[in-house]
Amino acid sequence: MNLSHKADYALRAVCNLSKLPKGKRSSIRLISQEASIPREFLAKVLKDLAASGILVSAKGVQGGFCLKRPAHKISYLDVIEAMNGPLHLSLCTESGECSCYSVDDHCYMHQFWVAQEKVFRNALSKRHFGIKR
Amino acid sequence: MNLSHKADYALRAVCNLSKLPKGKRSSIRLISQEASIPREFLAKVLKDLAASGILVSAKGVQGGFCLKRPAHKISYLDVIEAMNGPLHLSLCTESGECSCYSVDDHCYMHQFWVAQEKVFRNALSKRHFGIKR
Repeated sequence: MNLSHKADYALRAVCNLSKLPKGKRSSIRLISQEASIPREFLAKVLKDLAASGILVSAKGVQGGFCLKRPAHKISYLDVIEAMNGPLHLSLCTESGECSCYSVDDHCYMHQFWVAQEKVFRNALSKRHFGIKR
Repeated sequence: MNLSHKADYALRAVCNLSKLPKGKRSSIRLISQEASIPREFLAKVLKDLAASGILVSAKGVQGGFCLKRPAHKISYLDVIEAMNGPLHLSLCTESGECSCYSVDDHCYMHQFWVAQEKVFRNALSKRHFGIKR
């Protein structure tokens, strides 16, 4: 029960980029080193973050990666869903309708997971980058 | 970001067994069918649930599986941790001390994950089986 490694690394990468001075860019080498992310894995994560419009990359001597919008406008949920698609805590809620129980046409767990997802999604969507706490 | 399939199936299996009349046992075939769990996977899950003391199995004609203690004394957290070990939402809290950021000796995310884990763990530990809601 945890974040996928991909989402975990994506959060670290965005957190790292959120500390860059305005107008600066960073490199895969530097992000990997500073945020403790395996370099091969990081390349894939950065590619997906760029595809999702969370960061931009530029080639050339002055190239590198930076966030596309201000860090305080990027939520943890934005980053997690950019990596893994819509957030779901259990199979029970993932499919839209619950198929757990044929035995009595009632799933004892569904409402619990719906409620937990709501709480968790709310916390992740309210938490943004760029603020030291 | 979701439960492992193993934990998800374990919850379904325990939920299914919680509906058995007292003194009755169920079979892999029946649990698999009623709780929509692939049979091969279910066998592994039931073995681990037995090893964790959540259910008991008996061989023979009257054999099968049943819960070891009353359903209302088994929490969702018991089952999830029996499958996956201690619950952690992110790598940031999994290792005990955070190794995310060498750049400024401060992890911006650690306290958030610690708090989220606490909330989620609390909800899972207070939620028990055997009660229709």
